[in-house]
Amino acid sequence: MTDVLNTALLPEGFYDVLPPDAAQEAAVIERMMAVLGGHGFDRVKPPLVEFEDTLLSGVGASMARHTFRLMDPMGSRMLGLRADMTVQVARIARSRLAAAPRPLRLAYAGEVLQVRGTQLRPERQFAQVGAELIGGAQPAADAEAALLAVEALQAVGVDRLALDLTEPTLVPALLGALGVDGEAGTALRHALDRKDAAAVAQLGGAAAAALGGLLAVSGPADAALAALSGIELPAVTRPILDRLAEVVRLIRASAPDLMVTVDFVEHRGFEYHTGVAFTLFARGARGEVGRGGRYRADGAEGEEATGFTLFMDTVLRAATPPRAPRRVFLPRGTAPAEGAALRAQGHVTIAGLEPGADPLVEARRLGCGWVLRDGRLDEI
Amino acid sequence: MTDVLNTALLPEGFYDVLPPDAAQEAAVIERMMAVLGGHGFDRVKPPLVEFEDTLLSGVGASMARHTFRLMDPMGSRMLGLRADMTVQVARIARSRLAAAPRPLRLAYAGEVLQVRGTQLRPERQFAQVGAELIGGAQPAADAEAALLAVEALQAVGVDRLALDLTEPTLVPALLGALGVDGEAGTALRHALDRKDAAAVAQLGGAAAAALGGLLAVSGPADAALAALSGIELPAVTRPILDRLAEVVRLIRASAPDLMVTVDFVEHRGFEYHTGVAFTLFARGARGEVGRGGRYRADGAEGEEATGFTLFMDTVLRAATPPRAPRRVFLPRGTAPAEGAALRAQGHVTIAGLEPGADPLVEARRLGCGWVLRDGRLDEI
Repeated sequence: MTDVLNTALLPEGFYDVLPPDAAQEAAVIERMMAVLGGHGFDRVKPPLVEFEDTLLSGVGASMARHTFRLMDPMGSRMLGLRADMTVQVARIARSRLAAAPRPLRLAYAGEVLQVRGTQLRPERQFAQVGAELIGGAQPAADAEAALLAVEALQAVGVDRLALDLTEPTLVPALLGALGVDGEAGTALRHALDRKDAAAVAQLGGAAAAALGGLLAVSGPADAALAALSGIELPAVTRPILDRLAEVVRLIRASAPDLMVTVDFVEHRGFEYHTGVAFTLFARGARGEVGRGGRYRADGAEGEEATGFTLFMDTVLRAATPPRAPRRVFLPRGTAPAEGAALRAQGHVTIAGLEPGADPLVEARRLGCGWVLRDGRLDEI
Repeated sequence: MTDVLNTALLPEGFYDVLPPDAAQEAAVIERMMAVLGGHGFDRVKPPLVEFEDTLLSGVGASMARHTFRLMDPMGSRMLGLRADMTVQVARIARSRLAAAPRPLRLAYAGEVLQVRGTQLRPERQFAQVGAELIGGAQPAADAEAALLAVEALQAVGVDRLALDLTEPTLVPALLGALGVDGEAGTALRHALDRKDAAAVAQLGGAAAAALGGLLAVSGPADAALAALSGIELPAVTRPILDRLAEVVRLIRASAPDLMVTVDFVEHRGFEYHTGVAFTLFARGARGEVGRGGRYRADGAEGEEATGFTLFMDTVLRAATPPRAPRRVFLPRGTAPAEGAALRAQGHVTIAGLEPGADPLVEARRLGCGWVLRDGRLDEI
């Protein structure tokens, strides 16, 4: 989607989506939203612009440096362009839908804008599809979120999925129990994110053996969970790991063929999560197709919630492209009902505008593979 | 959509769209886009943000005072949030799609933002659906645009439509031929926009009789066009009126039951149009549901183009609401396949998360009208 012309005409990181990609993206979004809606996740549409301080409150705090700001000429407060929609859904849940029964299941699809692209994802505007289950603390809610993300992706042909589960509170609990904190803790987190076993052994202090063990057994879920018994872990980690195991059990009961892995030490990108979290990968697609997990919907005191976001750029690279419809040229003067009948069969019709033009020449020129002549559909 | 809570949490003119409205809006947009796609109008998706000077060039010039501006922290140029999408589609046509065969038929759906709401339309963000036919100067192209807008609206249940045609170049040509210009011309335009026959007679000078006649005969198309023969008009208006009559003839041939009116003197809102233009009203809906017409895609020297924009806020007030699906409560432990079968039939399923909960109580609490018990669907 990046070419020289585009670079000159649009700000860096912003792109036009052209035919047939734009139609495919819309179809994929609506198909996935239909899956979410089928599970009772009702669609909401928050605005693109909000007060800056609302956007950056609660779970939005980490988005401050990603958010475009603008002055409202009609008011004195700074506005922000949303960089994420989760914080908006949390706001809706605690305000307009405060009285709605819990768990509250909401879904959304929309564009988000970020000030900086990354090397892996240079775009500064992209479409997200997501769901949030707010006010449900059960392991079944964790499993529902992950399974729903998988089902939505499979519905658009993104299969060969890998679900990578993690529990971002596990390492902090372990470090706290073993008295490893401050600078050593931070360096350790980085080493764990890099999966650098040598650095973990060197920096780990009292936690070196436990962390090294967790790092080593991370992998396919059943084996990883079974191997935990061989690692000596502080008691405070027990309920965290039991919960994770229960969520794995529920997921595998519903989706026995899904590839499920567990990463006990992942931290990056899960800063605001408070429980079981996950990343989804599609084999063959670069980068993650989605991520989600448990959090507090409105900061530390907020409602228990879980949910996920699917990233449309990656999803589209992995989705099955739709079959292109037949494009049929209708010579000028074709009766309206004839065109309508073809469209009702799923064909695309292109109306000729020039009375005298040769239908075959015009059809070819306009990229039509078919032409309607004397009521007959001819392939050309 | 306006309530006290919302006013406090969101900037003036920005709203959350809640269930079931958000889902209905999306369904209506996609249904209308399917109609446009069926006629070969291929979807494009330009970005929400562009360089300010690109957004305000050509047909975008009139949008300057409506456009939100923001600084790009990653560059030194001012950006604008789009207030309209027509100018973006024109940019795509002359850049990325410069080599595509003409006429180029493009469609779009997306959000636009405007700095100021109006009394009739306080929203500052709204969804638009539109189509542009670029590089086709024929009367058949004018008719195709108007008929397509009508078909898209009828597809979502907006019927009892009135198509009001105008030709914004008619009055300027007439005034020019009769030597009425400068201040008198401007005052006359305002009087004509107000349909103030007395002021037109007073200010009209050499054009008073002709303008008064055009004002008087505006109305249902066939009668209006027939009545033109009783008005003395300068020769320069002849090709303009012949063209308008030909477009009316083409529209009536395809849609004999459509209410078509002609307003010979309308000017407001058609400042950049260069030929046959139109407004669509739905009886029972306040305000217009769409407007469109002929223009130059890239300023005075640009390609001949015609197209239209449909305003989703008005469209939704006039569209047929969809039938709500059955909401079925699935007690905790329901086999996944049972839920999948219900969703495949079009039902919405709500999964119970608590193992011990009374299914009937939970179903009622969560707004479900049905519950699955022992493989049976019970209405409650």
